[in-house]
Amino acid sequence: MQLPTRVKIIDVGPRDGLQNEKQPVPAQVKVELVQRLQGAGLAEIEVTSYVSPKWVPQMADNHAVMQALPRQDGVRYSVLTPNLKGYEAAVQDRPDEIVVFGAASEAFSQKNINCSIAESIVRFAPVVEAARAAGIAVRGAMSCTVGCPYEGEIAPERVAYLAGLMKDIGVERVDVADTIGVGTPRKVQRAIEAALQHYALDSVSGHFHDTYGQALANTLAALEVGVWNFQSSVAGLGGCPYARGATGNVATEDLVFMLHGMGIGTGIDLDQLVDAGVFISDFLGRKPNSRVATALLNKRAG
Amino acid sequence: MQLPTRVKIIDVGPRDGLQNEKQPVPAQVKVELVQRLQGAGLAEIEVTSYVSPKWVPQMADNHAVMQALPRQDGVRYSVLTPNLKGYEAAVQDRPDEIVVFGAASEAFSQKNINCSIAESIVRFAPVVEAARAAGIAVRGAMSCTVGCPYEGEIAPERVAYLAGLMKDIGVERVDVADTIGVGTPRKVQRAIEAALQHYALDSVSGHFHDTYGQALANTLAALEVGVWNFQSSVAGLGGCPYARGATGNVATEDLVFMLHGMGIGTGIDLDQLVDAGVFISDFLGRKPNSRVATALLNKRAG
Repeated sequence: MQLPTRVKIIDVGPRDGLQNEKQPVPAQVKVELVQRLQGAGLAEIEVTSYVSPKWVPQMADNHAVMQALPRQDGVRYSVLTPNLKGYEAAVQDRPDEIVVFGAASEAFSQKNINCSIAESIVRFAPVVEAARAAGIAVRGAMSCTVGCPYEGEIAPERVAYLAGLMKDIGVERVDVADTIGVGTPRKVQRAIEAALQHYALDSVSGHFHDTYGQALANTLAALEVGVWNFQSSVAGLGGCPYARGATGNVATEDLVFMLHGMGIGTGIDLDQLVDAGVFISDFLGRKPNSRVATALLNKRAG
Repeated sequence: MQLPTRVKIIDVGPRDGLQNEKQPVPAQVKVELVQRLQGAGLAEIEVTSYVSPKWVPQMADNHAVMQALPRQDGVRYSVLTPNLKGYEAAVQDRPDEIVVFGAASEAFSQKNINCSIAESIVRFAPVVEAARAAGIAVRGAMSCTVGCPYEGEIAPERVAYLAGLMKDIGVERVDVADTIGVGTPRKVQRAIEAALQHYALDSVSGHFHDTYGQALANTLAALEVGVWNFQSSVAGLGGCPYARGATGNVATEDLVFMLHGMGIGTGIDLDQLVDAGVFISDFLGRKPNSRVATALLNKRAG
């Protein structure tokens, strides 16, 4: 089949990435990171979340970050809102899109958000309703769509079930996330096809973790199904909370290198993106967790 | 198209990997590495090379390694022989296959083996002739089939040209190598298709470097063209001589994880393969350069 000629990338580094970092990152550093990402051409950025600071202290500065952010035309700023309280806090900061976060695995849902999948949908429904009434876009993150740290392999039927529930409550688009990175090309295609039972191709995005180095192969597999929206994290920010020392989100740099090499446009300037990754990695006191960044920085150093 | 249901992997770690390591590795450690690889189910192993120790001191122990090796039925042991002198030294050690090493880039050929592509073929011809007369299989490594550190992008026509020359002198099968890892799926497919102008699908293997993290996506792209022979290096041995600190050969562990996840058989036991990678990495005083090994070792550690 004809592959997409253009891909839209949501950089989730400031939220999904930094949320998993031990070291606290000041609001002004987060704001500069977002500015650098939009400067590099990212048109969608997941900025922060509105979760209890008791659970996620890394995002306690959500208001400060969102208020300080110099917004750029054409860029969509999304934030995570797990419940109505979070939504009400978020709405003051005028996000373009809110994200509700469900799981295709019952065990993961219980461990991660302390309720069943069905209960999580009941919790999300008023959030989605309120957002849509306010003209704010709604995305549904579907985690563990291929494998779960507690349940092991996840059947595509579970993904279809969750996607159907998301659709029922009015979620406009969904992410098919391989949260622990165990997915391989065919499994990922089956998870995407399950989501496509309820959502159009334009409303499904791929979110792959590189824990087992499979993220770009999975991206190619998703492109072959026609998916053209992807999520990634600059400098591979985030690590993997389920495996110490392992890689988490695929690095945006690695994704962009592959897409550009395939003649697929992203609107992103790879050199500026590498600079953004160096900026935040320097702050965190380490090297970017991106093979492309490593190779290009070596090249720059001669 | 239908993907291959079975893949054959040549582990090139003992030769292509260890050749690029600064630290000298004793012959007995190399022998144990090969034993561990065949124990894990590898049916083809590139063991050593017969090059002047002035240029490649890492392989000066070629006779010692080949003579000490307890051979296993059904395993093919290949060695690199750049010229007739090398071949004559190699043949005493009864390799199953010899490898001649050409480049699709003129500049790389000049810098790497000090002669033009055409001259390299003249040099290889008597080696190939002698090997075939002795009933030894002959493989032709084609380096820089996508990009070259000196010339930049390499046109598929250059790959077809080299493959045609290899075919003319009797080389039985060829590797399409992305030596500097800049290839992306479509480019790699075009390089393979160029090789297929002269060789049957069964006689073409993919050899991808992970310097830019693209190797598994490129493997998937090659599988989609029907290629079912691949080369990789346990623990990602080898680094990349053209970019300090960067990754070289794709790790066999990462490749096997993807293939098994896709239901493609390899005959390899992933856990034993990880152990082989830990063995040599421990000797080299570092962690395996494989995301799968990292993730599985974290899992083992609980």
